[in-house]
This record gives sequence, structure tokens and C-alpha cells, in this order.
Amino acid sequence: MDRRIPVDDRTGHPTVPETTRRADRLSGTRYGNRPTMKDVAARAGVGLKTVSRVVNGEPGVTPETERRVQEAIDALGFRRNDSARVLRKGRTASIGLVLEDLADPFYGPLSRAVEDVARAHGSLLINGSSAEDPDREQELVLALCARRVDGLVVIPAGDDHRYLEPELKAGVATVFVDRPAGKIDADVVLSDNYGGARSGVAHLIAHGHRRIGFVGDMPRIHTAAERLRGYRAAMEDAGIPVEESWMSLGVTDPERVRRAAEDMLCGPRPVTAIFSGNNRVTVTVIRVLAEHARRVALVGFDDIELADLLQPGVTVVAQDAAALGRTAAERLFRQLDGTPAAPERIELPTRLITRGSGELPPAD
Amino acid sequence: MDRRIPVDDRTGHPTVPETTRRADRLSGTRYGNRPTMKDVAARAGVGLKTVSRVVNGEPGVTPETERRVQEAIDALGFRRNDSARVLRKGRTASIGLVLEDLADPFYGPLSRAVEDVARAHGSLLINGSSAEDPDREQELVLALCARRVDGLVVIPAGDDHRYLEPELKAGVATVFVDRPAGKIDADVVLSDNYGGARSGVAHLIAHGHRRIGFVGDMPRIHTAAERLRGYRAAMEDAGIPVEESWMSLGVTDPERVRRAAEDMLCGPRPVTAIFSGNNRVTVTVIRVLAEHARRVALVGFDDIELADLLQPGVTVVAQDAAALGRTAAERLFRQLDGTPAAPERIELPTRLITRGSGELPPAD
Repeated sequence: MDRRIPVDDRTGHPTVPETTRRADRLSGTRYGNRPTMKDVAARAGVGLKTVSRVVNGEPGVTPETERRVQEAIDALGFRRNDSARVLRKGRTASIGLVLEDLADPFYGPLSRAVEDVARAHGSLLINGSSAEDPDREQELVLALCARRVDGLVVIPAGDDHRYLEPELKAGVATVFVDRPAGKIDADVVLSDNYGGARSGVAHLIAHGHRRIGFVGDMPRIHTAAERLRGYRAAMEDAGIPVEESWMSLGVTDPERVRRAAEDMLCGPRPVTAIFSGNNRVTVTVIRVLAEHARRVALVGFDDIELADLLQPGVTVVAQDAAALGRTAAERLFRQLDGTPAAPERIELPTRLITRGSGELPPAD
Repeated sequence: MDRRIPVDDRTGHPTVPETTRRADRLSGTRYGNRPTMKDVAARAGVGLKTVSRVVNGEPGVTPETERRVQEAIDALGFRRNDSARVLRKGRTASIGLVLEDLADPFYGPLSRAVEDVARAHGSLLINGSSAEDPDREQELVLALCARRVDGLVVIPAGDDHRYLEPELKAGVATVFVDRPAGKIDADVVLSDNYGGARSGVAHLIAHGHRRIGFVGDMPRIHTAAERLRGYRAAMEDAGIPVEESWMSLGVTDPERVRRAAEDMLCGPRPVTAIFSGNNRVTVTVIRVLAEHARRVALVGFDDIELADLLQPGVTVVAQDAAALGRTAAERLFRQLDGTPAAPERIELPTRLITRGSGELPPAD
């Protein structure tokens, strides 16, 4: 073009006149501008089948012809349409990942691990949040199936997955993570929630505590229920009767958790230690305890960043989120490889990391 | 089935015999088991066109017939194939999001915000990590285009995006986030990196510091370069000559950052304050300073969880990651709506949050 091209003062970049670009984009059908294999064939002066061989890396093309075709491809900016192609071969080279909340730092390493495994198998990852809503989980899972993902890694929000049976029958590989599927038989990879919580509470008991509070997520969530079960088991092992006021399960919103923790900490016989059921709860409980006059011990389920730098450092029962994601994704691709295997429950151990807060004696 | 179904001792769930399920899955072609619209038509005793009308919600079907067709759909477990369907209409109702690392907590709120906007527009989100590798970014972006995503939100790792020109010409809507596109003109939404860093360093200078270190990400990354530029500007504003040993840019691995911070803190004329260039760097610098005998002031770019609970609380220049994601995604869907607009650079302001670490006087 020989007309003067205006330059954006701020960036120093040329500003392409709006009308030219938008006209380009909006003319014709949405994909009407895309060069086709026919265009490539015409430009290279070869037949369509020859172009197809080059694009698909099939034999039967001389180096000279291949060079001409590649030149035409580059000159036209031809890009193979993988959506149409994969449909014909039966696999889409994509897997779906449904988790609770993309914004929760716990799911970061899990997602990344699933992605790394998918990538190693040449698959793309489609990601979505259920926001702990069973209806949204189902909507998202079915939307992914409608797009023919080869497999699904699902952190379930609901407790009834029979809606997935037609998909499983049609061959969609599925692995559940963090919580088991409801009412169907399927692979699940999760942490030892019960055992981990039990050892965390036993740790507090071993340091002299008897009045121990439990603040956890909504009781219908498998992990919350299992961790409560572990708490109860540890208390029972030590012969300590549990008071109802010591247990609070509900949404992990800071307001609800704060009220629950404050309630347990006030009154004539307050708790001397708290076990917090997951990373979201722990963060709020840490804040409440920081404002509290008396010293209160704390063990949290899930590690959190900077936990070691707080005064005192936070004692946690840590999961390995990356290992959960990696194990689930590897299981998924073994299913896709056709390796016959009955559905399995794979439980990964937790780790108690003592940093100070869980070893504080009761301030009696 | 009337044969006895074995039950898993541990879960109490019925265990479907392996051979039946796997045989089901592996027989025929991959999707050979899926009921088709023809199967639905046969079962309902209607024509194929009638089934199509019911499935697509088109008029021209009596309530009685619709009921029969729906019954057949439910009985067979028929699921519409959206991959084939969307290709015919020209939109895929999906957008791609390419960011640096799914595991980085900074990107969590950004991803969630993009997803929320996508969902409001009936779109699925396909997510991937570039790991700061320009080749991987290009590979991922082109794979997403090959799948005909309607649009892309890209946090670029590279500085040359001319490879995207054929796609932009074909109509793929694209918005860059956090850093501008290289060598092409495109929408970008980012934070005021330069101004934010400048005010953060000016804050340290206002509290008496003159020997101030800067530890940042790799210099080829736009945000790192802009924040260094802001640091230099603040120092120049105050008439303070910058020593080369006060600046360290490189990978954000804890080992490299640790060495850089320790180098600045030792020797005859150590720095009395550090400005850390992003959340990853800040976390490591906090640890180094916690072990350091002398009191050193700190301002970090990016807020981090629990920053207020540390002693002292961490003073930060905060970005709004969710606003970045939301603004970029909304811009993307306005492009898709066909609203004509020249590419824009949208800069969101940062916020200085003073918590203690940035207000410490020099320990001279």
C-alpha cells in the first residue's frame, strides 16, 4: 500500500484504518475468507488429492511437488480445519475438565497437571466451573459431551451421575476427582480425607486439647463429610464426647466461617483448638484467631501459600493437588488406550506438616 | 438383567462385570453405540424431519407427536451432536483462553472472570498454558483456531503475532490481556504497569529510602519491562542514580530470585528496600527478608493471599485480575457482535495498598 499509514502516538504502532479491516472481517460468510484446499491446489497447480496428502503427511508426493504445495499453503495462509477432520476419525483430541471454581488456588496445580498430561497425549483441555451447583455441573458436562470430548475429568458437585450413563455407554472415558461419582460406578481419584482429618485432630489431642472445634464446607460435599467423620473418629478414639456447638458445616464464605469460629470461641467453655476443613475456611479462621485475645491452636486441611511465614506457622494436613490431577488424567488416557480395567478408587495419602499453630497447648 | 450383580465391599456399589462394560465400549466404531436421530425416528414411528424439528425446537409438530419423539429420545439416551451442528452454522460457541500458567494463583480470578462472561454468552471456554514459551503459545493458539473457536483471549508469551494475521482476517475475534500483541494491531487490556511501579517505588523513596533494589521477571516480558521503567522513572524523579547491581530481572524461580535478593542485601552498601516485580517474586523475597537480620522495606507488585497477616503486612501495588479478564472477554464479545471499533488499548489503574512493609524506614 502506498498511502500514508497513520501511527498511534502512544504505541508507535501503525493504525490500520478501521473500515478496511472490519470490511475484510464482515464480508461474506463467517469463514468465507478462509483459503480452502481447492485454493491451495489451484495456486500450486496440482490436484486436490495431492494437497490432501501433503496436509495429512501421507506418502506419494515428490519433494518438488511438496515444496510447491507448501509454498502455496504459506502464501495463502491456509489452515487445516481440525473440527471437521476429527469428526471423521472419531476422536476429537480434547478432554473436558469440570471443577468447582477456576479462581480457587487449590485447583490451579490440579488443572495444570491435567493439562500437562493432556498435552503429552496431544489433547486440548476444555475447562469449566460448576460453582458447586449440581445443575451447572450437569449442564457443563453434557455440553462437553455434545462437543464429543474424548474424556472427562470431573470434580462432581452433585451426587447423582446417572445422567452420564448414555455417554459412558457411548465410550466417553470418565474419571472423577476429589469426590466419587454418585449412583454410578466410575474411576475416582481422591485424597485420604477421613484419615488425614483424623490424624490432624489426633495431633491436637496429643498436644493437650479436648475442646476442639470443626469448621467445614457444606455437609453434602463428600470431602467435607469425610473430614468431619475423621474428626469424630479421632475424638472417639480419645474418649472425648463431641458437643454439637463444636461443629459447623456450611458455605465457605468468609462471613459464615467467621461467625462460626467466633461462636465457638466465645461463651463459658470455648474451644481451645480448631480444625478447619479446607483452604478457604483456614484463611478466614486464621484471620479470626489473629484478632482473638486468647491463644487458640489450629490445624487446617489443605496447605496454603505463605502458611510457614505466619506467626505462628500454620500446621496443615496437605493434599497433593497436582498428583490428584496427574493421576486422574493418566487414568483417563489409559481408559482411552483401551486398557481393560474395572473402575477403581485410587486414594492418595495426605501429609501432616507441623509449623507451630497445631502444637500450641491449650491456653487454660 | 436377572443375574446376580456383585457388590464392591468397600463402596457398597454394584460392580458391573468388567467384560460387559468394556465390550460395550469397544465394540464397533468409537461412536457406533450412540443412538442416532434415525433410531429415534424408528422408535417413535415418525419421519427423520420430524425428529429434527423436535430436537431443534422448530415449529410444525403436534404436541402428541412431540411427546412421542421426546419419549424415544429419553428411552434411547439420544444426545444431539453439537460439534457437527455448530460447524454448519458458522459459530462454535467456544472461545480460547491462552495464559501463562494455570497453576499461578494470579490467573485464577482472571480465568474465572473470562469464563463467567463466556457463559453469559452461551460459550464454552477452552483453556491452555503457554509456560511463557512463545513457540508453545503459537502452537496452542493455532490449535484453538484449527478448532474454530469464535474468539481468543491471549496473554502473550511471544512478541511477534503476525502468525495470527490469517486468522484475524478470517474473522476470529481476538483480545490480548496483560501484555500487548507484537507487530500486529489488536485490542489489549492491561494494567498500568509503569504508573503502578512508579508510585510503589516513589512510596519507598517518600519513606526515606535511596538504595532501592528491583527484582523482576524476564526483561523480554512486557509487564517486567514496564515495571522496571516505572522504577527507573521514580528514581530519576527523586534524582537518585541507579546502580546496576540494584536491578535483577530473570526467571521467577525461587532459586534465582533468592540469589538476586541476597546479593542486593549483602556487601558494604546493601539496599535498604526492595521492589518486587510480581506475585511470584514477592513470595520468595518475603522469605528472604524474614531470614535477614536487618529490617528491609518491601513493596510488591500484585497482591497475594494472607499478605495482611504477615508481620509486617505486605505493602503492594495491586492489580484487579478479575477486572482484566472481564474487560477483555466483554471486549471480545462486542467484537463478535459485529460492533465496529478500531483496536483499543484499555489500561486499568492499579491500587497501592499500604500494610506496613513499605513504610519501614531505612535501617541505617
